[in-house]
Amino acid sequence: MTYCVGLAVDRGLVFMSDTRTNAGVDNISTVGKMKTWEVPGERFLCLLSAGNLATTQATVSLLEERRVAPAERNPAILTMPSMFQTARLVGDTLKEVIAESTPAGPNADGRFTASFILGGQIKGGRPRVFMIYPEGNFIETTPDNPFFQIGEHKYGRPIIVRTYEPGMSLEECAKLLLVSFDSTIRSNLSVGLPIDMQFYETDSLKAGYRRRFDRRDPYYVRISEGWSDSLKKAFDDLPPFTTEG
Amino acid sequence: MTYCVGLAVDRGLVFMSDTRTNAGVDNISTVGKMKTWEVPGERFLCLLSAGNLATTQATVSLLEERRVAPAERNPAILTMPSMFQTARLVGDTLKEVIAESTPAGPNADGRFTASFILGGQIKGGRPRVFMIYPEGNFIETTPDNPFFQIGEHKYGRPIIVRTYEPGMSLEECAKLLLVSFDSTIRSNLSVGLPIDMQFYETDSLKAGYRRRFDRRDPYYVRISEGWSDSLKKAFDDLPPFTTEG
Repeated sequence: MTYCVGLAVDRGLVFMSDTRTNAGVDNISTVGKMKTWEVPGERFLCLLSAGNLATTQATVSLLEERRVAPAERNPAILTMPSMFQTARLVGDTLKEVIAESTPAGPNADGRFTASFILGGQIKGGRPRVFMIYPEGNFIETTPDNPFFQIGEHKYGRPIIVRTYEPGMSLEECAKLLLVSFDSTIRSNLSVGLPIDMQFYETDSLKAGYRRRFDRRDPYYVRISEGWSDSLKKAFDDLPPFTTEG
Repeated sequence: MTYCVGLAVDRGLVFMSDTRTNAGVDNISTVGKMKTWEVPGERFLCLLSAGNLATTQATVSLLEERRVAPAERNPAILTMPSMFQTARLVGDTLKEVIAESTPAGPNADGRFTASFILGGQIKGGRPRVFMIYPEGNFIETTPDNPFFQIGEHKYGRPIIVRTYEPGMSLEECAKLLLVSFDSTIRSNLSVGLPIDMQFYETDSLKAGYRRRFDRRDPYYVRISEGWSDSLKKAFDDLPPFTTEG
């Protein structure tokens, strides 16, 4: 499995992804699941992937192939006029890759499936975040539903649902997502450190701050240890239950 | 789906279960998933169920049938000499019920599957909690693994993992499990109020305090609303993230 989140706030976007891939519990590796592209002043794109690694890698490679001739400088994904068209390109490419690998007919199965979170901004448009399904279609964040998770999303969801506010700074989002990732990592072996994080500031049209948190990262260690204590304190602050109540 | 937890602490056992059953999102009902039996001074048993409702109800009915002749007063489940033998009886009965409903051969599927949490104490033994699988076998809580969850368990797991302590009172366990249930109910439509709760005090050999929490229960409302505030405060107390860090 995997755990990735793409989250939109008023000031921009924050992306976070783990790096564990596994084929069984005795065959695990570290693979980045976050891919970014930028043309400073024109566009910034961030793609997070979950699912079959052959599928997601092939999709990214196809998105990067130069579109027409070798002389054409831009990868296909940088030629789209809008975030919506970019999401369509990613969805169509994903659907094709899955169709090529999957046996047709009665042997069809879901082994080669994958999904993506795509976020970013193209000049003239606003920042947008999409969740792209293996069928090639996609949905977009809205003020009521301002973040997407892919992979092992359940453990880390309650803290985001309860704490998210659209006015948060990107740094506060980083703290929130680290708590969500830490809760997931403690409960599920298939999600693992290091964690990749990418900021995007609204209308900057270039890559923002990026960081990889490993197991010894001092801030990650403080969050991971501090959250247990803070949570216990929060729990103690709740009114006690009594059987007379 | 469903969400049920059976949790062991030094002072006893606490059981909690939701009451939502659904066949699709447009066909939901309220059905208790907690069944208790007691022979005061001799034994107390509590059974929590998840999975196909026809399977779990048939299993409970068979466990309650008088074993030999109508003159025999005790249901089968009250005739076992130990908690271990009781768990075997529940497991064997469950396996039989599933085998009867499930078509054999290539049409076999998992539609009629179910699982149970069984806890309680029988005179001469200690309190024990088991998780019983559809295959009829089961595992028991240990000091390292002091609780079982069945059904939609992921959302509510991190708070239990971080807050549980074996020295907690049963009232503190009630508070902890209500937070875990509230986190699950907010994230997943297939788990719903009211919530049933049952206490068992070690060596009491009789049913302890029991309560049903509905949507308007004043304590549940205080926990549900208070937890969002407490969590936000706990989150604010964590050290801030800075891009210089």
